[in-house]
Amino acid sequence: MEHLQFSLFTSSETQIEQLGDCTVYTVNNSTGSGKMTDYPVFSGIHLIYNDFHMRVCPCDEKQCLNCIELNHCCEGRIEIEYNGKLYYLGKGDFALASKDGAVQSSYFPLAHYHGISIVLDGTLITDETVQLLKSFSIDIVSLYRRYYGDGKCVLLRDNTSVEHIFAELYTVHDSVKISYLKVKVIELLLFLSVSENFACRVQQELYPAYRVEKVKKVREYIETHLDERFTVEELADKFRIPLTAMKLCFRAVYGMPVASFIRSMRIQQASCLLRTTELSVMDIAGTVGYDNASKFASAFRGIMNCNPVEYRQRAM
Amino acid sequence: MEHLQFSLFTSSETQIEQLGDCTVYTVNNSTGSGKMTDYPVFSGIHLIYNDFHMRVCPCDEKQCLNCIELNHCCEGRIEIEYNGKLYYLGKGDFALASKDGAVQSSYFPLAHYHGISIVLDGTLITDETVQLLKSFSIDIVSLYRRYYGDGKCVLLRDNTSVEHIFAELYTVHDSVKISYLKVKVIELLLFLSVSENFACRVQQELYPAYRVEKVKKVREYIETHLDERFTVEELADKFRIPLTAMKLCFRAVYGMPVASFIRSMRIQQASCLLRTTELSVMDIAGTVGYDNASKFASAFRGIMNCNPVEYRQRAM
Repeated sequence: MEHLQFSLFTSSETQIEQLGDCTVYTVNNSTGSGKMTDYPVFSGIHLIYNDFHMRVCPCDEKQCLNCIELNHCCEGRIEIEYNGKLYYLGKGDFALASKDGAVQSSYFPLAHYHGISIVLDGTLITDETVQLLKSFSIDIVSLYRRYYGDGKCVLLRDNTSVEHIFAELYTVHDSVKISYLKVKVIELLLFLSVSENFACRVQQELYPAYRVEKVKKVREYIETHLDERFTVEELADKFRIPLTAMKLCFRAVYGMPVASFIRSMRIQQASCLLRTTELSVMDIAGTVGYDNASKFASAFRGIMNCNPVEYRQRAM
Repeated sequence: MEHLQFSLFTSSETQIEQLGDCTVYTVNNSTGSGKMTDYPVFSGIHLIYNDFHMRVCPCDEKQCLNCIELNHCCEGRIEIEYNGKLYYLGKGDFALASKDGAVQSSYFPLAHYHGISIVLDGTLITDETVQLLKSFSIDIVSLYRRYYGDGKCVLLRDNTSVEHIFAELYTVHDSVKISYLKVKVIELLLFLSVSENFACRVQQELYPAYRVEKVKKVREYIETHLDERFTVEELADKFRIPLTAMKLCFRAVYGMPVASFIRSMRIQQASCLLRTTELSVMDIAGTVGYDNASKFASAFRGIMNCNPVEYRQRAM
């Protein structure tokens, strides 16, 4: 079976299994677990289902050349590196970018990601693929030239046509899977063929790596200090980021404002303690930074749609 | 160019024009005008865009054998005859039925219909088509056998997968049209291949022709008596249909309850008079059955989102 030149996302931690039509890559580490299911659709064109419940998926030092990677996010969030800057895909977002250089580790801001990658490997596309696509009016060589190269990158958020292309890929019946993937890859390539003005759509949304690095430290601090109270201004001071820059960058990385993120973390932690311990509701409220039972109950209801006592009863 | 065995919907009134890849059939008669744009996608498989602003599209007496017709309604409403009974497609509905007998005139309850037909003509499917579809895991012969024949009929209302297949067909870029139609026909056939339990889904919704005939007379009566007031009960009495049967059948044919239909007709007629005559608003209200100006204004606003005077000013 054909494998992508960079053996996809393998590292010393990756387990590889051949399962019928596809190759399954699984990774487990201290940040969680992840799975990539790789289908070769045409020679040089692979479709990969990505399912991650981890923060960082490492990869070995290696180069990936001549590839175009298309990503669709179905659920959760993924960070994508592009020319030393970073951008983020959330539910329904779609991105296309050249892969031409060192392979990076993957980072999942919410430790939760489900999506699809389609990789066009310029070195593996055969004449057979070229001819087959030609019979559907797709000139893969010129399409490749149009989208491959420095500074060429597309990011489409919440695009209905893209959604219609990808939606059924997540639930397709096994008995027709490979054929269905072929149809969908052809449809996507046709979509890209007739979309004239896509290049460089992403420029405005790129975030410099050093700022993202700081914002990730902010998240780590929040998650390890849930019992404390702090304002967004205090966090910006503490990590020496201009307030507005921090707000914007945090929202880009984690998909929500800092304050919502803090509240969400507190309530997630509280719900975990409600399920798994016998601590009193008042004690749990304190552990996640609430010294007032009714404020805690109200915040809890706002996210979980029920109050803490009900939640614990249902979880029993 | 291949033509479907029954030359589609031709009658003595039809004009036929060859335009590049497609054949365009246009009809004009006293009930309005209509257009069918027929693309041969594979041998024996045609896709037809239907655009009608007419009530009845006639056809000559002829037989159509061995065909399966799939219809998707994008806008408006169409009546489909099946084994002497009738059913109706509204926005987003999809139907599949064998065509095996006398070709019928088409009836459009709202004199407004946009949709797509896909016709599989069993007598025209060549080995080339069989082989091509086979390369996408589609066994067209067994699919044909599964869906063709007496009593086999599918009706899906508001199905997300069907919507995703058809949505972009209505806006596809001309430069890739034929290829795109191929991809979509393959996708639809794959969808039908894996949909096991579709047969006979429509049975509950069939309406006998004699009752539909009466309900159409009710509509005609409403439209020619807009200046009069009558209740639904009075209409049922007048046309000798049991009240509940009339309500159900009317709603099936016209897609809305009798009372809503009457109101909608009155307001449509009023808006036409506001645009095209200098009659006073009060006179127009009387012409469409309102003797009270404020009740008329309120009904008008309910449908047109503005009052009659504003509407007339905008139309100037």
